[in-house]
Amino acid sequence: MMIPYLTLDDTITAISTAPGVGAIGVVRLSGRDAVSVASRIFKGKNLSRQKSHTAHFGKIIDLEGREVDEVVTTIFLHPNSYTGEDVIEISAHGSPYILTRILELCIEAGARAALPGEFTQRAFLNGKMDLAQAEAVADLIAAESAAAHHTALNQLRGGFSRDLDDLRTKLVEFASLIELELDFSEEDVEFADRKQFLVLIDTLKEKTSSLLESFRLGNVIKKGISVAIIGKPNAGKSTLLNALLNEERAIVSDIAGTTRDTIEETLNINGILFRLIDTAGIREHTTDIIESIGMERSRNNATQSDIILYLMDMNSLVSFDDRQNIYDEFQWLKEFSSKTIPVYTKYLLWKENISTDSSIESADSPYILTDAKSGLGIESLKQVIFEKAVGGKINTDQTIITNVRHRDILQKISVSLDKIKTGLNESLSGDLLAIEIHECLRYIGELTGRVDIDRDILGTIFSKFCIGK
Amino acid sequence: MMIPYLTLDDTITAISTAPGVGAIGVVRLSGRDAVSVASRIFKGKNLSRQKSHTAHFGKIIDLEGREVDEVVTTIFLHPNSYTGEDVIEISAHGSPYILTRILELCIEAGARAALPGEFTQRAFLNGKMDLAQAEAVADLIAAESAAAHHTALNQLRGGFSRDLDDLRTKLVEFASLIELELDFSEEDVEFADRKQFLVLIDTLKEKTSSLLESFRLGNVIKKGISVAIIGKPNAGKSTLLNALLNEERAIVSDIAGTTRDTIEETLNINGILFRLIDTAGIREHTTDIIESIGMERSRNNATQSDIILYLMDMNSLVSFDDRQNIYDEFQWLKEFSSKTIPVYTKYLLWKENISTDSSIESADSPYILTDAKSGLGIESLKQVIFEKAVGGKINTDQTIITNVRHRDILQKISVSLDKIKTGLNESLSGDLLAIEIHECLRYIGELTGRVDIDRDILGTIFSKFCIGK
Repeated sequence: MMIPYLTLDDTITAISTAPGVGAIGVVRLSGRDAVSVASRIFKGKNLSRQKSHTAHFGKIIDLEGREVDEVVTTIFLHPNSYTGEDVIEISAHGSPYILTRILELCIEAGARAALPGEFTQRAFLNGKMDLAQAEAVADLIAAESAAAHHTALNQLRGGFSRDLDDLRTKLVEFASLIELELDFSEEDVEFADRKQFLVLIDTLKEKTSSLLESFRLGNVIKKGISVAIIGKPNAGKSTLLNALLNEERAIVSDIAGTTRDTIEETLNINGILFRLIDTAGIREHTTDIIESIGMERSRNNATQSDIILYLMDMNSLVSFDDRQNIYDEFQWLKEFSSKTIPVYTKYLLWKENISTDSSIESADSPYILTDAKSGLGIESLKQVIFEKAVGGKINTDQTIITNVRHRDILQKISVSLDKIKTGLNESLSGDLLAIEIHECLRYIGELTGRVDIDRDILGTIFSKFCIGK
Repeated sequence: MMIPYLTLDDTITAISTAPGVGAIGVVRLSGRDAVSVASRIFKGKNLSRQKSHTAHFGKIIDLEGREVDEVVTTIFLHPNSYTGEDVIEISAHGSPYILTRILELCIEAGARAALPGEFTQRAFLNGKMDLAQAEAVADLIAAESAAAHHTALNQLRGGFSRDLDDLRTKLVEFASLIELELDFSEEDVEFADRKQFLVLIDTLKEKTSSLLESFRLGNVIKKGISVAIIGKPNAGKSTLLNALLNEERAIVSDIAGTTRDTIEETLNINGILFRLIDTAGIREHTTDIIESIGMERSRNNATQSDIILYLMDMNSLVSFDDRQNIYDEFQWLKEFSSKTIPVYTKYLLWKENISTDSSIESADSPYILTDAKSGLGIESLKQVIFEKAVGGKINTDQTIITNVRHRDILQKISVSLDKIKTGLNESLSGDLLAIEIHECLRYIGELTGRVDIDRDILGTIFSKFCIGK
């Protein structure tokens, strides 16, 4: 059952395009009065006489009749719109000044400034999408890598909801059989086959566990994997960082809309986002105090990161064997060896001047030899980082959960399933069993929004959205 | 005569909304193949069978059939589009990742990445707008104040072009009469009344001069007026700055899309933009070297700014008479007295403890007394700043030029008109006169793009646009 229509049926408005200057900017209206609000400030055709899904050139005028901009207004009539209500999109010149004026005029003409995510909240409340799908919208917009995008899109298409619906349908069947027994309780019959039910509960447990397990991966996909680059001064940290980023930067420079500050230290390997934490430069200073602060900071970064790249200038090493003292002043690294990738730098210089040990260079050498200036070994290093992070296998077609709310509810479902199982094994009475099953069903409903959801919870979910969505 | 269709008739594409994350983002296509390019990546209705000005829900799929996003695609068929060509607007989720993928797919499907301003350039080349109007588009998008917006919009509506067309039509009339004389040159007739022509030339001169004069104001409207705030440490510079900005900030905080860094030190008074250059804090340091660097910087700022606010703590003054030594260590300010506004600060403290001279406080006192903490005198100060900047009168309904290119050409027109006038007064022969008139006509044509314009000039004009416009 869909939850009732909560909103007040008023008309909301927001600037829906990204902040800042662009060629085009869009102000959106949704609600019962969307068309009449737009009509009040639009000079051109009579909007109330136009068909759904049509675009109209005209002018936005303020309430004193002064022209604000030339625009294209597109009409989407309910229920065939994003929100399921009447929606108007005003496409104007992409000036913050103009878009703000149009927003103000929409408000003067009777609309209300939309809250973050309120358009999508209405889409949910009007049954255009379930809650898990609505939540995927925010993830989709925030996705910075192919994998994150793919996962969010899969959820938006209802992949996650479908998986849950399977669970739910089967539980509902059993619940109704058990409730039927209650109606015939005097006759002491069992319509619901307890053994078959146990099998179902085990299947459900397995499904829930695999969804829960996917969360670690999902989180990694969504947020990216942190990689700390550490090493002594002149180990080649900055050069390696640049070599790792270089190719990506070249691609990025072709793309309008990707600002430097978001890309500067992120790296996309096979569609997964890595966040490179550069400690380069910190230790280049000479005074002891700064040196020790730098060391401390390197260590903190390394401790908190998912992966550590430990860089060593090959030319300064006495031995390649880490049983020797190659960790030098980074002895504390040994504690994090499982997440550390030792990287040997300045390979070409070494090859030219020092090379004596051919085993180090052999094809099956365990050593990661790099020469950042020439680019040698950089691609292999990326693959090593990728393997370390995702264990070599990632399949974004499977359902992956990325949302903390979902994980928390899945954990509750898991506990609830355990209780049901215990109840079955201990031949719990039908009425108590029914209570447990209904609790479990309620949790599943909370995921997809099929049961009444607390307004506060809805508020929390949608407050994470950007305004205008 | 419209200049010939220069472009190669290929199909261009760009992300047209502002960079960054938003609820909606738009990728635009324009050109002969816009519909077929979009069809290759759009799954939904057959776009080639749809009417102009219709919007269609569907999915963007990559060339391997993988879904990229759910979108609304709007079709504008030539000639009823912004560019005059077939235009497709793909409205997707406002994620930089998604928009970039769609852009890449449009390119894979046969479009070319658009150059800055190339959509507007095509609009110009296809006769949708003249050159002065096209130039106004960039100004409109960049406008940060009501006056700048109004001026650009007036130009976009063709106000500037109309003014020039009047000039042009009258000149053309005379040119044709004089050329007629040349056909009858053996008969020594004068069809063109020289006296009447002199009157016209004077009218034209006047019009040109007034447009040229409007440039100073136009530039001020477009770029804003710089205001340096200087004064001794503790004169109350930061407090006054905050008081001046405070009201605006409150308004701004309601507006999605206005970033702090662009607004932090700009102030809008009566629709005119002021750029406050804060030297506050610089001199708060104690060491002599920093002090002198601070002084030097204050002085540079003040020298280069349009207006100087010189702040004095009333409580520290011996006299209010600036013939006394109230300028103290700011003696160099006297050189800039015409653009300096002396501002007396911390009025309430003074009133409480020191006040003896009631003439200072009288209604017609020439002194600008402020108390930033209580807000006293701040509104009056704003009006004083405004008057100082624009001389008290501004009418953005008149034609105001804001463009350096326009000013340069108007100056050439002015010189050319002088030559014609001299020629008339000295009874220059018809053929030489005709040459001068044609030169003048050519200049006017350069303004509106009615004559062949060098590709380089067009390139320069449109390169200032953002990509996607």
